[in-house]
Amino acid sequence: MKRRLLILGILALSLAGPAPAQTNRPAPIDSPVVHQDRTVTFRVRAPLARKVELNGQFLKGNQAMLRDESGVWALTIGPVEPNLYPYHFVVDGTAVADPSNPDQFPNERFKSSLVDIPGTVPSLHANQSVPHGELVYGYYESTTLRRTRPLVVYTPPGYRSGDRKYPVLYLVSGTTDTEETWFRAGRANFILDNLIAQSKAVPMLVVMPYGNMMMGTPMPSSPQAAEMYQVFSDELLTGIIPHVEANYRVLADREHRALAGFSRGGGQSLFTAFKNPGLFAWVASYAAYLTPEVCEQRFPEMLAKPDDTNARLRLLWLGVGREDFLYPQARDFNRYLRDRKIRYTELITDGGHTWMNARHYLAETLVLFFR
Amino acid sequence: MKRRLLILGILALSLAGPAPAQTNRPAPIDSPVVHQDRTVTFRVRAPLARKVELNGQFLKGNQAMLRDESGVWALTIGPVEPNLYPYHFVVDGTAVADPSNPDQFPNERFKSSLVDIPGTVPSLHANQSVPHGELVYGYYESTTLRRTRPLVVYTPPGYRSGDRKYPVLYLVSGTTDTEETWFRAGRANFILDNLIAQSKAVPMLVVMPYGNMMMGTPMPSSPQAAEMYQVFSDELLTGIIPHVEANYRVLADREHRALAGFSRGGGQSLFTAFKNPGLFAWVASYAAYLTPEVCEQRFPEMLAKPDDTNARLRLLWLGVGREDFLYPQARDFNRYLRDRKIRYTELITDGGHTWMNARHYLAETLVLFFR
Repeated sequence: MKRRLLILGILALSLAGPAPAQTNRPAPIDSPVVHQDRTVTFRVRAPLARKVELNGQFLKGNQAMLRDESGVWALTIGPVEPNLYPYHFVVDGTAVADPSNPDQFPNERFKSSLVDIPGTVPSLHANQSVPHGELVYGYYESTTLRRTRPLVVYTPPGYRSGDRKYPVLYLVSGTTDTEETWFRAGRANFILDNLIAQSKAVPMLVVMPYGNMMMGTPMPSSPQAAEMYQVFSDELLTGIIPHVEANYRVLADREHRALAGFSRGGGQSLFTAFKNPGLFAWVASYAAYLTPEVCEQRFPEMLAKPDDTNARLRLLWLGVGREDFLYPQARDFNRYLRDRKIRYTELITDGGHTWMNARHYLAETLVLFFR
Repeated sequence: MKRRLLILGILALSLAGPAPAQTNRPAPIDSPVVHQDRTVTFRVRAPLARKVELNGQFLKGNQAMLRDESGVWALTIGPVEPNLYPYHFVVDGTAVADPSNPDQFPNERFKSSLVDIPGTVPSLHANQSVPHGELVYGYYESTTLRRTRPLVVYTPPGYRSGDRKYPVLYLVSGTTDTEETWFRAGRANFILDNLIAQSKAVPMLVVMPYGNMMMGTPMPSSPQAAEMYQVFSDELLTGIIPHVEANYRVLADREHRALAGFSRGGGQSLFTAFKNPGLFAWVASYAAYLTPEVCEQRFPEMLAKPDDTNARLRLLWLGVGREDFLYPQARDFNRYLRDRKIRYTELITDGGHTWMNARHYLAETLVLFFR
């Protein structure tokens, strides 16, 4: 029945959307299909391709897909460890998102899709039957770039109908990510909805800026990185925080401001918090670091008076995976802070520079902020 | 300088994102590039492809792209008439979104990108320097489908800080679209921001539901379409409107409710408004129609008492393009209403079943609603 109705709609579909090369568009296919045993079937129609592969963060390397006579390539893999994973197809060498999957990874440069493998217990990032917060897509005037920039703000359940003020987490995503990535790939909203429902996290706002300061993507150890971090710091202080504090019911003091980020966003967070010691009592870096040179050139006060620094920072949290390509530098950074008697909380996990780890670190820190 | 920084960042980029097949990821490319003379250059890297084409709603049919020695395919077209257009690449027969363009067309089934060609006068859908409303991504409990469903709500500039109540437009997108399509491809927010700034539209909320009622995509003339419209009508009345009226500052009466939609959403809007004559004083259909059979079976009262119907409907607006594949049926529907003395406003334009026309019709009706 469903199939028949779908076929009836082919004409409407093909003309409302971008018209395909052929006029008789074939019926839609289902992809991905997650089976009960946690195996997953992926499918993509590519009748003219010579080679189609699957690339997923649940795989080591690309895996060849098999073509059927209608030109649909398919592959069933797994069972896969429960988690939310990015994946894409490689069609004759070109990486493409799954056409059948509306759940996309927001990014400036690549097009990737997301597949959620549920476990026997609902995952923390899942849309569970609990009160839901909202995501507000708004705009503010950028002071540093002199243009209108987007901003995504999570407001917790009850925000709209209440009148209390909340603490705020500023949460920054990584290189080539957008202001949407912590929502779509990070599921920051569902993680926080669930932790609030379990009384494990304090209800808070989460402000997700677009962290690309339009200065390229410098390596975190380069002098250009510190310059870009400085622009981000200026943007946060003179553009984003004033906008948030003027437009949302938030507690506008250091004890009620947290700053955290993944990858480039982690570097931006560490730099901005160290540079502005009066602003943030809660700081977290997910898979990031600063170099000794940057610390000594930019925050000599912080290093010279570790007791003051420790008194101001209610939490300095540093998480990284052992297989992360930044792990050696991140470990060196932690040792550097330890040698200078800066107090921090460290979490070393399995895994690499992935959004699975970014979500894990977010959840670990959400239960600590504002306690 | 920018180029050098980008190259420095290749390692970070390739590991944070889905890893490509090759380990030395080439530098990002810029696509699309809109030139001063309104020509546009599109580029995509596909070194192993045999044939790459461009498909855009500014073109008749696909146009072949040319490969350079590095495996990047490019094509410059135009000059193009100013507008916001969907486009995609066809790589060896497979339709793919532009990897370099973060501006995507939200859809269940295809992956497409958006390119904006500005004119000498800023377009109504452009992000102009005016006060901006916000888009709220929220959730509600679906009564008809018994699951949590997404909902996007535009709130006008000043909503967050004020206390007044606003009228509401319920705005439904088409087949295979999502609750995001009127925002991302329709630019309903910027169109309304600009019309409000020009005092041409009344400040209002716009509620954008996910119109797919999980019953396939029946042709609008089929009996299945009416069944699906009925489920949508139930969902709006028992799920969406109560959620909106409980959570937002809205005027909750017929005179302050409008209902409009494009394509399938237009059919859903006409059906729901005719079926519930006490609920909506303002109704618009963009490129849609109902059949005489559905009207006679489902709303005999409306036809039997045209004077009552006309008195209740402050606006019944019907727009369609002459090249729309639904034009003959839409024109017949208008004649059917005229013969039965149901009053309506008609707009017949150039163009087909496109989002360029959908935006045009939205703008035409936003200035009429709630006047």
